Amino acid sequence: MPKEVVIVGGGVAGVFVLRNLLATKDEVPGGMHFTLIKREKSGWVSTCGLPFALRGWYEIDRTEINKPQFFLDQGVDFRTENEVTKLNLGKNSVVLKTGEEITYDYLVIATGRKQSVKETKLDGVFTFNNEEDACKIEDALNTREVKTAFIRGRGIIGLQSAAAFAERGIKTTVLGGPPSLLPSSLDPDMGAIIKERMEKAGLRFILDRREITAIRGKEGWVKSVVIGEKEEKEEIPADIVIIGKWMVPETDLAKDSGIDIGETGGIVTDRAMHVEKGRRSLNTVYAVGDCTEVVDGISHRPKLNQLASTAVAQARVIADNILSDITGQPGLYSSYEPCISPSVADIGGGLVMGSVGVTTNAANHAGIKTISGKATKLIKARYFPGATSLTMKLIFDAFTKRLIGAQMVGEATIAERVNEFAVAIRAGMTAAELRNMERCFDPSLAQLEDVTIDAAKNALEST
Amino acid sequence: MPKEVVIVGGGVAGVFVLRNLLATKDEVPGGMHFTLIKREKSGWVSTCGLPFALRGWYEIDRTEINKPQFFLDQGVDFRTENEVTKLNLGKNSVVLKTGEEITYDYLVIATGRKQSVKETKLDGVFTFNNEEDACKIEDALNTREVKTAFIRGRGIIGLQSAAAFAERGIKTTVLGGPPSLLPSSLDPDMGAIIKERMEKAGLRFILDRREITAIRGKEGWVKSVVIGEKEEKEEIPADIVIIGKWMVPETDLAKDSGIDIGETGGIVTDRAMHVEKGRRSLNTVYAVGDCTEVVDGISHRPKLNQLASTAVAQARVIADNILSDITGQPGLYSSYEPCISPSVADIGGGLVMGSVGVTTNAANHAGIKTISGKATKLIKARYFPGATSLTMKLIFDAFTKRLIGAQMVGEATIAERVNEFAVAIRAGMTAAELRNMERCFDPSLAQLEDVTIDAAKNALEST
Repeated sequence: MPKEVVIVGGGVAGVFVLRNLLATKDEVPGGMHFTLIKREKSGWVSTCGLPFALRGWYEIDRTEINKPQFFLDQGVDFRTENEVTKLNLGKNSVVLKTGEEITYDYLVIATGRKQSVKETKLDGVFTFNNEEDACKIEDALNTREVKTAFIRGRGIIGLQSAAAFAERGIKTTVLGGPPSLLPSSLDPDMGAIIKERMEKAGLRFILDRREITAIRGKEGWVKSVVIGEKEEKEEIPADIVIIGKWMVPETDLAKDSGIDIGETGGIVTDRAMHVEKGRRSLNTVYAVGDCTEVVDGISHRPKLNQLASTAVAQARVIADNILSDITGQPGLYSSYEPCISPSVADIGGGLVMGSVGVTTNAANHAGIKTISGKATKLIKARYFPGATSLTMKLIFDAFTKRLIGAQMVGEATIAERVNEFAVAIRAGMTAAELRNMERCFDPSLAQLEDVTIDAAKNALEST
Repeated sequence: MPKEVVIVGGGVAGVFVLRNLLATKDEVPGGMHFTLIKREKSGWVSTCGLPFALRGWYEIDRTEINKPQFFLDQGVDFRTENEVTKLNLGKNSVVLKTGEEITYDYLVIATGRKQSVKETKLDGVFTFNNEEDACKIEDALNTREVKTAFIRGRGIIGLQSAAAFAERGIKTTVLGGPPSLLPSSLDPDMGAIIKERMEKAGLRFILDRREITAIRGKEGWVKSVVIGEKEEKEEIPADIVIIGKWMVPETDLAKDSGIDIGETGGIVTDRAMHVEKGRRSLNTVYAVGDCTEVVDGISHRPKLNQLASTAVAQARVIADNILSDITGQPGLYSSYEPCISPSVADIGGGLVMGSVGVTTNAANHAGIKTISGKATKLIKARYFPGATSLTMKLIFDAFTKRLIGAQMVGEATIAERVNEFAVAIRAGMTAAELRNMERCFDPSLAQLEDVTIDAAKNALEST
């Protein structure tokens, strides 16, 4: 009998478990059968690609990378516009809203995250989490006269939406908390570089403690947002509003079935990505992606990561372990390592930010003393094409001088540098080792002394 | 009294020792004084930039990054068109060809490398090692009708010259030994990708054991090259010839003064870059750059590296150690690590190659059994600008599965990836760790599953 794998949720997390297992299906004696249940009607949508669609790089439907039929054709019971209402762990089954019950050999919980925002009845106020949201926003931009926009949220999606609006000539205001942009990835001095660049592109940022106190409309459509109270009150015109606040893990199903939820609100897993119940791992039940909490690779504390890259890395581990379990080959077993959050984002206007490890603030919060070094330099000699400037900040443990964080703002080479620093953090490289490291050189591609060396040197000089 | 530092040679190696020490001059009680002696009349020339000048990216004089006056203005006794004829280690002095003797506290030998080729009396036959060579070649191209070219040498400079000629519409033949291009950096299957691409651009490669048997001329200028003997003989028309063969360390001065020369022909140093005499380190005499031999980071055997990046890394170490010695601060001491040869080159025609660690052949030659994995993939989704293809080969120790080499051919992101793999090799990352690693993601900048993961997976599947 083929083994039944049931996947709850069809975002990048669930889909990558499915894709990995599909690719190894033939290696399994007796075979595997897959059921994936998701609320949306789409197949696999690259939600990270949606802000680029809004910027007009391509049509929104381009972000649906695989249609449901793609999976159906491979024998997957791919159920869209459906929902699991109960995980019956004692009976190894899940119950759908239709009442149907599906028995599993392996269960994968990939329920993602949800936004915890009060709804408003006005039209023109949107969230920006999925294809449906993107279509609504795109539709509003195309059918109405949108001159002003208001965005709540200073995270990646907030900034990418703001950049998209600015490119369309819309006067846009972004409201976020203090003190700076992307505070979970960038120190205030690095966030300030992005703020300054985006302000030059005409964006307005309000980074203080004020919250939205009212959303006003006219004929059922939003016309302005009021922030703050009393003398701090301000009314900001807005023909469109996007609420891109922090998202919380969607864990209702897991919680109801008694699965352990961590202090961050995410599902707790072991390194194999098994969920736990009463602190004991359940060997046939996995969780993956935004609904889980991970362990920070520097502070060793639980945190939410909520990046597609995390989901993809976890999905590989889960596929390995299901395969290892079915085939009885322990050599296939893998584990998800403590997370150092390598991240990169094209913010718009040619600006790219990258970050990995901890920020100074996060390190200090965890009781880790830090030193840091910073440098700005062209990535190659001025007379070569693509010689853009890059600002780099490196954060080291003050005692060991080992790298624990890196932040960059620039235009190019940042994604690859984030991956280099991810390896360097894992390897425990010190400031002196980074400064003395031999780096490859070709004058049309690099500097003889890279900005990394300057930043590491700067950190050493600060001690 | 200021400490006297004498530097013999003004290539990138000597100049970077000088630049590093100049930057820290004020930290030294009593100060430092510098004398640099070089044969050429230029200041600091980026020889790596010369092939790009030949491709017309900029004028040749652009490659002189600092003129002699730049150093003279900083109080350096910067002597061009001069030559050291003797190192008088017993008397802590050097003798110039003028007979003048200069006493040193610290001596830095940066004599570089030389070409060991028979000279021909014909005009139109050039080497390509320095600015003078570049000017002569440029001059020939501008003043004569050059329709055909012949290049001896399948290394970086040979290929870059060939690409420059091809861009100018010159029918070019490249002669190199078997079996493939850039064999010290790339396995034959990876070299073949470059060969194929360059052949499409109209270049002809002859990669066999034949050597040049005659160079024929007309009115004193070259007109053809004859290769091979008897029935293998072939005459190839050539209005210009470049001999870009392997270079040997320039060690005559060192050898004459009794400094140890290694089995590769380079000057032996310890990790601090001190030269050795009778296997004992000389604490005030350093060697740097192409004239030295390094220890390979994988095979632990001596080798010649002859890359500007190696010279720059060694120069940092020497500056640190001179400073440490003068100030009596042992904390400043640094060491040059065994070399894993991170290298990258823009070959021309948009093609970039990168390499780090050992090739399969070099590993096998050192008795190391290997496994390898290979993959070709776009660096980002097809509908984003700059979505070019990259072929990656990863080489692992067959027993430990640790990464010992990486090779790439593509158009972008290669320099940064070489640096990532340089860190990964030092960190001893395994194939499984590379495959499971979390990498940063933004759809406009990367794939959710990078080519690295595919290549590592491919290697694991091969076992």
